[in-house]
Amino acid sequence: MSVTAAAGFVAAGVAAGIKASGRPDLSLVATDDGAPVAAAGVFTRNLMTAAPVITTRAHLEATDGRAVAVVLNSGNANAATGDQGLADAEAMCAAVAAELGVTATQVLVCSTGLIGIPMPIDVITAGIPDLVAARSADAGLDAATAIMTTDTVPKQVVIDAGGFTVGGMAKGAAMLSPNMATMLAVLTTDAAATSAQLKAALVVGVADSFNALDVDGCTSTNDTVLLLASGRAGPVDHDALVAAVSEACASLAAQMCADAEGATKVVRMTVTGAATDDDARVGARYVSRSNLVKCSWYGCDPYWGRIASDLGSCGIPFDPARLTVSYGGIVVCRGAVDSEHDEAAVAAHMQGRHLDVVADLGLGDGTATILTNDLTHAYIDENMGTS
Amino acid sequence: MSVTAAAGFVAAGVAAGIKASGRPDLSLVATDDGAPVAAAGVFTRNLMTAAPVITTRAHLEATDGRAVAVVLNSGNANAATGDQGLADAEAMCAAVAAELGVTATQVLVCSTGLIGIPMPIDVITAGIPDLVAARSADAGLDAATAIMTTDTVPKQVVIDAGGFTVGGMAKGAAMLSPNMATMLAVLTTDAAATSAQLKAALVVGVADSFNALDVDGCTSTNDTVLLLASGRAGPVDHDALVAAVSEACASLAAQMCADAEGATKVVRMTVTGAATDDDARVGARYVSRSNLVKCSWYGCDPYWGRIASDLGSCGIPFDPARLTVSYGGIVVCRGAVDSEHDEAAVAAHMQGRHLDVVADLGLGDGTATILTNDLTHAYIDENMGTS
Repeated sequence: MSVTAAAGFVAAGVAAGIKASGRPDLSLVATDDGAPVAAAGVFTRNLMTAAPVITTRAHLEATDGRAVAVVLNSGNANAATGDQGLADAEAMCAAVAAELGVTATQVLVCSTGLIGIPMPIDVITAGIPDLVAARSADAGLDAATAIMTTDTVPKQVVIDAGGFTVGGMAKGAAMLSPNMATMLAVLTTDAAATSAQLKAALVVGVADSFNALDVDGCTSTNDTVLLLASGRAGPVDHDALVAAVSEACASLAAQMCADAEGATKVVRMTVTGAATDDDARVGARYVSRSNLVKCSWYGCDPYWGRIASDLGSCGIPFDPARLTVSYGGIVVCRGAVDSEHDEAAVAAHMQGRHLDVVADLGLGDGTATILTNDLTHAYIDENMGTS
Repeated sequence: MSVTAAAGFVAAGVAAGIKASGRPDLSLVATDDGAPVAAAGVFTRNLMTAAPVITTRAHLEATDGRAVAVVLNSGNANAATGDQGLADAEAMCAAVAAELGVTATQVLVCSTGLIGIPMPIDVITAGIPDLVAARSADAGLDAATAIMTTDTVPKQVVIDAGGFTVGGMAKGAAMLSPNMATMLAVLTTDAAATSAQLKAALVVGVADSFNALDVDGCTSTNDTVLLLASGRAGPVDHDALVAAVSEACASLAAQMCADAEGATKVVRMTVTGAATDDDARVGARYVSRSNLVKCSWYGCDPYWGRIASDLGSCGIPFDPARLTVSYGGIVVCRGAVDSEHDEAAVAAHMQGRHLDVVADLGLGDGTATILTNDLTHAYIDENMGTS
C-alpha cells in the first residue's frame, strides 16, 4: 500500500498499449466512494507547459480545489502537441469521469514520456473502462508501476503521522526519465484540510525535496505534484500535516536520485558558511550542474579545484582565502589551497556510491544541500537515442 | 607568422620541462626592441582568480598599460596556489624582465593547465633565459604551440586591415583544455593606440567571439585576452581597429570550437525573434548548456522538443504558439507543434559536423548566436581522469 494507504483512496494500473513494450502505462488514483475531496497541486514553472498541466490547473480552478480522481499515463508526455494535446487531456478526464459518474473537471490528469508526438488518444480512452474497473485499495503498487518510464523501481511512500496518514507515489526524474526529465508525484492523506491548506503544505514540502534535486539542470514541461485529502481521519494540526507531507516528498525525492540508473554516484552537495541561505542554494545548485565537477565524481576524483572555480563564478559573494572543501568529512582544501589529508580515506569515500561533499564559504550562516548525481557514459547513451 | 605579424613583435616557444611529456610549455611574446608599448587585457570574472591573472592586472595598473613582454606557460594553471602562487607569477615576470633589462611590472604573465598544484617554479625560471634568447619574428608558431594543452592544433590569426595588421594566438577552450576550460589569447598590432583604446577594442571584440563561445558552461580561473600595440604603423581609425580586433577574436574563437577534439559537432545555436538581444543571448546560452540538447546533437537527433523546453524554462518571455525551430534552414517545428518537413534533408544535416540551429521566438527583433558543441563520451573520458 502506498498512495492508497490513507483511508478513502483506491488506485489502479493497467497496460493500455501506449508503450510499444506492452508494459503498464495507464494509472489511476481515486476516492473510494466517488465523492470529491480537497485537492491541490504544484507544477513546473516551464512556460513550455504540457497540455495535462494546463488542464489540471484549469480543473482545480473550476472546482475550487475539489477532485475525485487523477488519471496518469506514461509513454507520451502530451507536450508540444498544440490544441489537439489539450483536447486529448480533456478527453482523458472525460472518459474517467464518465466511468465514475462525475464531471470531467473533477478529474486531474498527468502525462510523462516523449514530447512533440501526438497522443494515441483512442488507445488511451479504450483502456480507461478497464482501468477504472480495476481500482482497489490494494492496487497502489500497480498504479506506481504504470507511471514508470526508465525508472528501474516503483517509488512509494507511507508516512504514519500518528492519527493520520500520508501516502504517495512518484516517478522520475532526469536520468530516470531521460527523454524529458519529468517528475510526477501523487500524494494522498486522510487528514481533513482545505485545498489552500494542502497547497501550503505542498509548497513547503517540495522546497527541500523535489526542488532540491538537480540531476541535469533541465526543467520538465510536465512536472506535477498533487495532494488529495479524504478527511476520513478528521482535522489535524497544520504543522503536523506540513511535516508529514514534507517527509513524504523527501522520501520520494531521495528514491528518485537513488534510482538514477545511469549514474554511479548519489551526491549530497552542501554549501555552508554562505552569506545567506539563498546564496548557499545558488552555489550548491551551480556546482551540482557543473559538467566538469560531475565528471570528476564519475572518475572518483576529489578534484576540489573545479568546485572552487564554480563557487567563484556562480555570482555569490566568495573569498578564496575563506574556502574549505571536504569529502566524506575529510577536509581536502583550506583557503583554496590543497590541505594535507588522509588520501587513502578520501579515495575510499570516492569509491562509494554515496558522496558527501561540503564546501564552506566562511562568510556567514547560509546553508543549503542539493541532491545530485555524476555525469556518466550511460547518461549520454540514454539521451542521445532517437526521439 | 601570427602573433609576430604586426611590425615590432617577436616571439618564442620552448620545452622547459613543466609537462611530463616533454612538449613545448613555455612561451613568449615581446617587443622586438625591448621598449614598452601600449597594452590592455580582459580577464575571467571568476572570483576564484588564478595568480597570473592577479599579477597581470596589477602590472597593467602599475605601468598605466605599458608592457614589454608576455610570458605564458602550459602544464600548470598556477590557480588555487595561494601566496606561493602569487610569488611564482611574480618570479616568472622578474626572470623575463632580467633577461630583457626591463622592470618586472613591464612583463605580463598567463598560465594554463591543472589547478591546485604548486608551480615547478625552479624548472620555469631555469628555462626562461633560453626562452628569451630564442625570440624572433619567425617564432610565432613556436609560441602558439607552447601554450597548447589538449588542443590538437595551434590557433593563430592574421588580419590585414589595410595600413595596419592585427595578429594573434590562442589556446582552449573547455573540451580543448578539459581540466580547467582555460582560454588564453595574445593579440598584437602595429597600429598606434592608447591602452584605453586597446581595452575598448578588446571589450567589443570578445563580446561576440570568446564570450559567445560556450562549450560546457564552466568559467575558467585563468581566462585572459591581451592586446599589445607597437604603433609602428602609426595612428589608425578607431572603428577600423575595433573591427580588425573583433575579426581576429572571432577567428580564434571559431578555431577553438572547431578543435573540440572530443566533440563531434560544432553548433551555431541562434535565437531570433526575442524581445531583446539580451533575451536572445540568455536563451541561446541556456540551450547551449543543456545536457539533454547536447546529447541529442551527439545522437544526430533533431529533437526540437528539448530546445522548446529549455527556452520555456530559461526565464525570458516565451510563447509556445509563436515558436519556430529549424535545423540547417529546414523548419521542423511551428507553434511548438511538429511541422511537416523533408526528414531526409534534416537527417543529412544532422549527420554533418556543422549544425545550424535557429529558434525563432516570434516576439521581437532580438537576436544572438552562441557557438557550442555536443556532449560526448569523449568529453567524459577527458574530464573524469585523475586531477
